[in-house]
Amino acid sequence: MTRYKINLEYDGTDLIGWQENLQGPSVQSIVKDAIENFCGHRPDVIGAGRTDAGVHAVNMTAHFDLPDSAHEANTVMRALNFYMAEKPVSILNCEIVPDEFNARFSCSARHYKYRVLNRNASPVLEKNRVYWVPRSLDIDAMRSAANKLLGNHDFTSFRATQCQAKSPIKTLDKIEITKVGDEIIFEFSARSFLHHMVRNIVGTLIEIGLGKPYDVDEILKAKKRSAAGPTAPACGLYFIGADYNSMDV
Amino acid sequence: MTRYKINLEYDGTDLIGWQENLQGPSVQSIVKDAIENFCGHRPDVIGAGRTDAGVHAVNMTAHFDLPDSAHEANTVMRALNFYMAEKPVSILNCEIVPDEFNARFSCSARHYKYRVLNRNASPVLEKNRVYWVPRSLDIDAMRSAANKLLGNHDFTSFRATQCQAKSPIKTLDKIEITKVGDEIIFEFSARSFLHHMVRNIVGTLIEIGLGKPYDVDEILKAKKRSAAGPTAPACGLYFIGADYNSMDV
Repeated sequence: MTRYKINLEYDGTDLIGWQENLQGPSVQSIVKDAIENFCGHRPDVIGAGRTDAGVHAVNMTAHFDLPDSAHEANTVMRALNFYMAEKPVSILNCEIVPDEFNARFSCSARHYKYRVLNRNASPVLEKNRVYWVPRSLDIDAMRSAANKLLGNHDFTSFRATQCQAKSPIKTLDKIEITKVGDEIIFEFSARSFLHHMVRNIVGTLIEIGLGKPYDVDEILKAKKRSAAGPTAPACGLYFIGADYNSMDV
Repeated sequence: MTRYKINLEYDGTDLIGWQENLQGPSVQSIVKDAIENFCGHRPDVIGAGRTDAGVHAVNMTAHFDLPDSAHEANTVMRALNFYMAEKPVSILNCEIVPDEFNARFSCSARHYKYRVLNRNASPVLEKNRVYWVPRSLDIDAMRSAANKLLGNHDFTSFRATQCQAKSPIKTLDKIEITKVGDEIIFEFSARSFLHHMVRNIVGTLIEIGLGKPYDVDEILKAKKRSAAGPTAPACGLYFIGADYNSMDV
């Protein structure tokens, strides 16, 4: 067999998320359909992250296998893009990797960003690409609260109730908030995240930015989802990259 | 009467352009419908530029009049945005201006940008927002050619055959090409432009970037549309701002 690593961009707006199921089109089903159209095989496609419905990717990593005597990486990329021409998924890069490489388990860090449009007028050019917050946000208050989330914590309060991770303890390596024009961009890095963790953190930070009396230390200590703020909408969230140690790639 | 100056954002993808006519929805018809829904009047709405079908605006300026004893600027903005909630047009700002202000005739400079996505994979997140050029472009060659277009010239070769401007002579004050990631951004400033002038210049510069033997000096000298390259598609073009002297505003 030959293992292929691919990098993908996708617009999650009309997708049910990464994972294939019978509810509608998913990133996985679109890529698997394209592989099948190209060569008649329908291998599993394993992603670095399993994003939810409406969540986008600027650069998601995935892998899949084809039987031996397979095709050149560039041929595979062009063929998949040909079969996905009208789909909201595009292959940015494709390479042949060692069989040990695993897009999910070899991943040493995952990066997300969350885009908030903070202005009076609703988004037109960035519709479905940003979360629109028309009220003014206190960025300094959001930054102070965000800093308290850095490092190793029990993130139970920021975890979806249906989250299947074994442990709620994660290490958040980066959480940065930048203002660019009318946009506020939140950037996150960690080895891995709990289900809805980024959106629950952003939803809570926005409440803090609006002046609500949330205390991040108290929320962490409470270890219950109801202690934190609401889940921010999917449309503002982007998977922006997965890191791999060079020996795994 | 009270004169209102508005700033607009719009997604031109599904519009027939700025100008109202019976072919389909236009920026003008959407704004006029909103004004009529708000207060029963349907004044003309005059824009700084009359963009074509598919062209976007990050910040277009326009003006219109309402009979006296009219409404506060902020009320007008919120009302129009309310009536345009599901439309691809949004009012970013509204202010009451002196009767002498004219969005079209008081305008001292107009600014456009043109976005090219230069990578193998077709655009997904930026679909209808960029012109996709998958072949590699020589930016230095495009920059040298662009510099020859700066200043006062007869732009007949870059003018749509249906252009109604009295004179083909214009002064191009700025033409800058920047590479940001996979994107190449062309920025233009002038007091005014001929019909299709930006798209015809970009279409020609792209041919030059691909290595075609176009000579800008020869093209200008030829004074015929067929001497220049093709018209670049509308989807990459954005009206990004109109300037007014403070005494006019």
